[in-house]
Amino acid sequence: MAQPDDALGYARAHREAFIEDVKTILRIPSVSTAPEHVPDIQKAAEWVAGHLKSLGFQSVKVLPTARHPVVYGENLRASASKPTLLVYGHYDVQPAEPLELWTTGAFEPTLRGENLFARGASDMKGQVLCFMKAVEALVKTSGETLPVNLKMMIEGEEEIGSPSLPAFLKEHKALLKADLCLNGDGGIVGPDAPSITYGLRGIAYFEIRLTGPATDLHSGIFGGAVHNPANVLAKLIAGMHDAEGRVTLPGFYDKVRALEADERAELNRLPTPEAWWLEKSGAKALSGEAGYTATERATARPTLDVNGIWSGFIGKGSKTVLPSKAAAKVSMRLVPDQDPDEIERGLKAYLGKNAPPTVTWELERMGCVRAPLVDRKSKAVRVGMEALKKVWNREPYFARNGGTVPVVSQIQDLLGIDSLLLGFGLPDDNLHAPNEKLHLPTFHRGVETYVRFLAEMGR
Amino acid sequence: MAQPDDALGYARAHREAFIEDVKTILRIPSVSTAPEHVPDIQKAAEWVAGHLKSLGFQSVKVLPTARHPVVYGENLRASASKPTLLVYGHYDVQPAEPLELWTTGAFEPTLRGENLFARGASDMKGQVLCFMKAVEALVKTSGETLPVNLKMMIEGEEEIGSPSLPAFLKEHKALLKADLCLNGDGGIVGPDAPSITYGLRGIAYFEIRLTGPATDLHSGIFGGAVHNPANVLAKLIAGMHDAEGRVTLPGFYDKVRALEADERAELNRLPTPEAWWLEKSGAKALSGEAGYTATERATARPTLDVNGIWSGFIGKGSKTVLPSKAAAKVSMRLVPDQDPDEIERGLKAYLGKNAPPTVTWELERMGCVRAPLVDRKSKAVRVGMEALKKVWNREPYFARNGGTVPVVSQIQDLLGIDSLLLGFGLPDDNLHAPNEKLHLPTFHRGVETYVRFLAEMGR
Repeated sequence: MAQPDDALGYARAHREAFIEDVKTILRIPSVSTAPEHVPDIQKAAEWVAGHLKSLGFQSVKVLPTARHPVVYGENLRASASKPTLLVYGHYDVQPAEPLELWTTGAFEPTLRGENLFARGASDMKGQVLCFMKAVEALVKTSGETLPVNLKMMIEGEEEIGSPSLPAFLKEHKALLKADLCLNGDGGIVGPDAPSITYGLRGIAYFEIRLTGPATDLHSGIFGGAVHNPANVLAKLIAGMHDAEGRVTLPGFYDKVRALEADERAELNRLPTPEAWWLEKSGAKALSGEAGYTATERATARPTLDVNGIWSGFIGKGSKTVLPSKAAAKVSMRLVPDQDPDEIERGLKAYLGKNAPPTVTWELERMGCVRAPLVDRKSKAVRVGMEALKKVWNREPYFARNGGTVPVVSQIQDLLGIDSLLLGFGLPDDNLHAPNEKLHLPTFHRGVETYVRFLAEMGR
Repeated sequence: MAQPDDALGYARAHREAFIEDVKTILRIPSVSTAPEHVPDIQKAAEWVAGHLKSLGFQSVKVLPTARHPVVYGENLRASASKPTLLVYGHYDVQPAEPLELWTTGAFEPTLRGENLFARGASDMKGQVLCFMKAVEALVKTSGETLPVNLKMMIEGEEEIGSPSLPAFLKEHKALLKADLCLNGDGGIVGPDAPSITYGLRGIAYFEIRLTGPATDLHSGIFGGAVHNPANVLAKLIAGMHDAEGRVTLPGFYDKVRALEADERAELNRLPTPEAWWLEKSGAKALSGEAGYTATERATARPTLDVNGIWSGFIGKGSKTVLPSKAAAKVSMRLVPDQDPDEIERGLKAYLGKNAPPTVTWELERMGCVRAPLVDRKSKAVRVGMEALKKVWNREPYFARNGGTVPVVSQIQDLLGIDSLLLGFGLPDDNLHAPNEKLHLPTFHRGVETYVRFLAEMGR
């Protein structure tokens, strides 16, 4: 049986070596949305598989899907009476653009102060390695029989909405059978504020494309006669919020589960007052749905954001074009019990009603998932909270996270397994943005938390 | 003295050779806004200079400016009693992007049916050559003494707003002294509707840049707490028009000279009913300022158009980013007597009042010019109308053109010379757009019109 104290000692003695392995995988630009990075996706998957083998995992495989492979490996040496954990992670990353805003190369991991900078450092190659290093500490100090049975499932499509995962989960349902899913694709409230996340937001992501004139026109010759689709798109997007910051799409709030007074009190006890959001975002002022605090708005209320917009001439200089086309990527963060299908119908109804007869529009649905909530009273949550408390020596928080982890919903729906969200990313890790980073002191506390968690789950 | 009939015969006999020369200059990608095309700008200027020399022009020079050179050449062999015309043109072109929408290469001139397709075919290398071929016809049939004195001034910055031209005009004021400027950078109403253009629109072109959060953020973590600058920009742009299609910027209409009833009647006799604008634009329906016809709106009323907008992730796929920055190129077409400086103040006042405290904004002014009107009762206009009538064998139209020719204002202001706008572009030539083209039958009628015009001006 693993001895946490020995494993913790090993972890403390091997911090530099752990980080070297993190750097190695960060050097692989496994951008899942970019066709040109398919070879890097394969390389990253094989690196993870090799590392699992080196830790004594068995049946390690790089399993194909319709697009990017899933890495699987198991260590079922614990007795059948011990719980089996399905550990979820992903080895793919977001695009690194805009490259010119990175201080050092996105795929050249660089240490500055307490942080390691690279795309994927926090989201989530760093988190995957954090768990694997806890396993390493246990294996190296107590042998290959772990306190619990583990099944690792590390996918390569999380950053594009995990399109192949549902089919994968269905195909490998028996292989993936487990008592609980441990999902490290989350974070804690702050470096001194450990937390477990019991709620996430869902998402409904769309691309809206408008066409006005048949071709780009000269704005001098046609301007005034012809409706400009970029102006039309601006008006359509502007109309999606009212003066109170509420989303105007038909039915948008119909299914939103109201926040109870005690839950709001708990969320607002989190160490994230308005000043925190201001500082972390670097915004000059905050704004959003009237009647809610920033923490509530960002974690427990639905939103609508433009993720991208483009039309006409966007190079340097001036071009007097009246564009033929205008497009925007628009996504809504969802909360329980909003249904992405109903949101899509609302968006279509809005566009149908408000798009003028001067343009045609089309809508592409690009990845939608409901918002999951986890049972706060389960044993795993209690053990996780205790582990956090021991490592940080302070009371952890219950938190909701405004991000989306589609796999949590899918694993619940398709495998019938609840997910414990225990990960160690920080809100200022610049996820999906330039200068993404991993906070090393938090990484090392994460390793110790996982060691304690695994040991205690096996008792 | 030149004999128009001989020259007309020469022009008819050399149509194919004329087009070969047009193709030659169209193959030079002289895009003035793009730093990488500086060598092509030089090459185009030298080609024009060489061609002028071959036509017997004297003192031919490629004169430097702060950016792109001006080609000058003169033929002052006519007697001092004959008028001196300053002939304006430009050898630079707009960018060809988006390249994928061109049926054949933008700089590989290709004949399909009656049209020659290439960037600059109509705007305005084709027009420059049209005039030079009329001179060639006169020179080859009657010798180097022309009916009038000519000074050619072919610049390389028209498509970026002619920033160096004012200084050039001031520096070379004595050299450029003339009785009238002939400007071919305009067009006729249609292939069977010859016209002279007596009014143009001005322009006020700006880039608006907003910054919200300090860096791109994860829309899951920050969405709801932080105001999204792309949503803010959409709202600001949407607010620039009211429900009647009028521009809302403070003071925008204060100086607009009202259209008189007889001028409106004349504009609406032009063969450009709503159906024409629909067909030429390929738009599903028209829209614009209430109370005016499409022809009035596009030629004699001011407008506001988005020429470009961009923010966030605009590649393929989905990225859940809450962007730090959002920007748009916005231009207003001006009519007499709007003042670009006042328009800029109005835009600043609008942004100052309507931009929320969650963002910072900056405004870059990118080229502004007043709208010129030409005297419809001058001799040159009458001679031009007669030449058009003889070549087309029908009554020409008086028209206004919604485009902007900054040099017309500059030549009026700095040299004290009026401009006659006599050019042969067509409204569906895809100016500034993919598949720009030159309509060859119109080009050849243009050559004959210039021959007749020059001969008659010398009488």
